[in-house]
Amino acid sequence: MELLKDRIRKDGKIKAGNILKVDSFLNHQMDTDLFTEIGKEFKRRFQDAEVTKILTIEASGIGIACIAAQSFRVPVVFAKKTQTKNIAGDVYTTKVQSYTHGRIYDIIVAKEFLGKGDKVLLIDDFLANGKALEGLIDLVEVSGAELAGAGIVIEKGFQAGGDALRKRGIRLESLAIVESMDEKTGSIVFRDEKAGV
Amino acid sequence: MELLKDRIRKDGKIKAGNILKVDSFLNHQMDTDLFTEIGKEFKRRFQDAEVTKILTIEASGIGIACIAAQSFRVPVVFAKKTQTKNIAGDVYTTKVQSYTHGRIYDIIVAKEFLGKGDKVLLIDDFLANGKALEGLIDLVEVSGAELAGAGIVIEKGFQAGGDALRKRGIRLESLAIVESMDEKTGSIVFRDEKAGV
Repeated sequence: MELLKDRIRKDGKIKAGNILKVDSFLNHQMDTDLFTEIGKEFKRRFQDAEVTKILTIEASGIGIACIAAQSFRVPVVFAKKTQTKNIAGDVYTTKVQSYTHGRIYDIIVAKEFLGKGDKVLLIDDFLANGKALEGLIDLVEVSGAELAGAGIVIEKGFQAGGDALRKRGIRLESLAIVESMDEKTGSIVFRDEKAGV
Repeated sequence: MELLKDRIRKDGKIKAGNILKVDSFLNHQMDTDLFTEIGKEFKRRFQDAEVTKILTIEASGIGIACIAAQSFRVPVVFAKKTQTKNIAGDVYTTKVQSYTHGRIYDIIVAKEFLGKGDKVLLIDDFLANGKALEGLIDLVEVSGAELAGAGIVIEKGFQAGGDALRKRGIRLESLAIVESMDEKTGSIVFRDEKAGV
């Protein structure tokens, strides 16, 4: 998606440790005009998938998932990272290892919002080692719902997550796949869009 | 907002401890058609306020804030609940006591996304004791930005937060103010909409 790649080139900042900061428009400050275009692009790529529900994970996936849901006209469910007293006991749960925080946490979804008959599109802002997405896939599988695929805004193609999921046969659509980044020059190389599909 | 009140009456569930569960359409599963109408209503109520930025707090405020931002055509920033290594050290921070989790946590916003010249509308899904909203107001004040007001989807009018903020002179627009709830009968009484403004 050229609009997105141009924005990453313009406003993305490369930091030590292979960190791509896009918090001026994607995951801290959020440009919802861009999100609207991202939502339409996900709809274009998954228009044949008969999606009935979008599943994401708190926190930074929620905005993109909600705006994408306007194109799909389906409900969004977000997996929560800790059990709160507002969630009844009847939940699906799995464990996820966080790349950012370096710890393991539980994610949960109430059983009443995911199950047989749902065809689920996963949406998230970032895909790196793929642990969060694997956690969401676990929740879909244990619920008896069908997985339509996963839509990712930015994939770090030099980390193993995306290609591992493709090898498992997951339909994965990443709108921008970063093949390499250079902290010194600030340059970003994207994978050929067609090769990424 | 009648559409919202009707939905709360239809799908809200009253639980022990004055908990109003609206997780089938607002804060776990999310109905983005409803969010679109909520966003338009916030725009209608704050159309004179010259809002330049929307500020919310993770996680359940993000979806509503992003969709409201489509009506205002301004960026959204969400305050994060813990410091991650993706956030630079240059942040505004304050402490918030959580009603739901019963603990104190830090919220942070990167300084580059909030400051003098911004006119900020706060958006959140719930207002009960008002601690989260007070935290967001602290961040706006310390940043030098101007506070336009706060837009809340559901206010628990029988808790002190909303009226305390009104007494401080904060422009607070709650789309549904629950005056009382009865766990046994399932009935909900809303404050007269005009009285809530």
